[in-house]
Amino acid sequence: MNTLIVHCHPEARSFNAALRDTAAQAMRTLGHEIDVSDLYAEAFDPVEAPRHYRCRANDDVFSALAEQRHASAHDTLPEDVRREIGRLEQADLVIFQFPIWWHAAPAMLKGWFDRVFVNGGLYTGSRRYDHGHFRGRRAICSVTTGAPAATFAPDGRSGDIDLLLWPIHYSLYYMGYDVLKPVLAHGVQDTRGGYAYQADAPFIAELATHRENLARRLANWQTDTPLRFPGWDDWDEHGVLKPGVTG
Amino acid sequence: MNTLIVHCHPEARSFNAALRDTAAQAMRTLGHEIDVSDLYAEAFDPVEAPRHYRCRANDDVFSALAEQRHASAHDTLPEDVRREIGRLEQADLVIFQFPIWWHAAPAMLKGWFDRVFVNGGLYTGSRRYDHGHFRGRRAICSVTTGAPAATFAPDGRSGDIDLLLWPIHYSLYYMGYDVLKPVLAHGVQDTRGGYAYQADAPFIAELATHRENLARRLANWQTDTPLRFPGWDDWDEHGVLKPGVTG
Repeated sequence: MNTLIVHCHPEARSFNAALRDTAAQAMRTLGHEIDVSDLYAEAFDPVEAPRHYRCRANDDVFSALAEQRHASAHDTLPEDVRREIGRLEQADLVIFQFPIWWHAAPAMLKGWFDRVFVNGGLYTGSRRYDHGHFRGRRAICSVTTGAPAATFAPDGRSGDIDLLLWPIHYSLYYMGYDVLKPVLAHGVQDTRGGYAYQADAPFIAELATHRENLARRLANWQTDTPLRFPGWDDWDEHGVLKPGVTG
Repeated sequence: MNTLIVHCHPEARSFNAALRDTAAQAMRTLGHEIDVSDLYAEAFDPVEAPRHYRCRANDDVFSALAEQRHASAHDTLPEDVRREIGRLEQADLVIFQFPIWWHAAPAMLKGWFDRVFVNGGLYTGSRRYDHGHFRGRRAICSVTTGAPAATFAPDGRSGDIDLLLWPIHYSLYYMGYDVLKPVLAHGVQDTRGGYAYQADAPFIAELATHRENLARRLANWQTDTPLRFPGWDDWDEHGVLKPGVTG
């Protein structure tokens, strides 16, 4: 079995990097081969733009969807996108390791979604959701935040973490993944107001706890119940839930 | 009065570009001066990273928050960030014009949030939400999607548009803005599966309708009731809603 870790953090000694290493070790212990897309270290370009398409479907007007589909069909996808797709095709489990910045993933990771999950090649109008390309595979977000857990509850000031992660979870489901409940490391912020890093004395015990929690969650990656989303059997021909079906 | 339009689309002849121009015209009619941050045209760099900070708070370990705060205090913020902050300081109304890509804003716009809303300079622990830097000013998202409106209802396959926009709306509220209900242009996708552009014959009438709708909404920018969020009076000292207060 194979695990891909998509890692998004600019600092090599960050909590996120530590958790990435914990995830790799945990999955190795289960016998997995590990691959890592280290987006900052590999200087991934997160901006979907005309410059990535050498052979255009339409030289006049740029449509990302049309160019992705054309490049998928003609085997002219950008090299970095081809590499990421190759990694995904190998992966039984994909772990996304990132901090919450501005109520969402950092731009670097958002752009990985914008560019790598290509129209045509990896999804079409009918090949989505529970008919998605990666159905039968699993994905999980391992996320750090900069405020206490209580503030990420539904009545919390930082915003309900389920609302914050809903868009990325739905994107993964759109691609067919069974999406596991996220692993959350809250309050990763030092007393100087920066994000904590691994060697920060006051955080060493806390980091150890987060590492143990992540390893424990990953040990159950095959048996955990995925998040529940509606599927093709639940929607009518207009793309809305059939009467009596609840989301 | 002044309006800033933060525009995020790679194609100059896109629906988004047309709606940007409509917004500018509508606000000019109301007597506003218009400024536009055209993120793709200006090649904005959306990746928050060490390379933007010449004089580091910590040369050893990179924390985005710590470096933003340090650079704010020492007037060493990156030039493009200073320019964007200058534009925001002038703006009574900020209009965000963008397409939904992967259930959220494109990476280019997400990174504008990551880099421009700097810790220290534009917010602190106590200067947030209804005590935020831009309180008294207004913001609105004008958004295009690639599927019919019905699929963005709470029971729709594309995902509840209120859930998709919740993170960006909450980020704007975090900065103190009164956030207006978004203006939505659904189904902006041509029959070939690319996004429609302005000269697409089947879409000319539809684009005209979207332009009229946007202009009508912007005419009421000062009187429209903003989205409702809890504020400092509603939270206890742990950052959760006080008993009896509903979010």
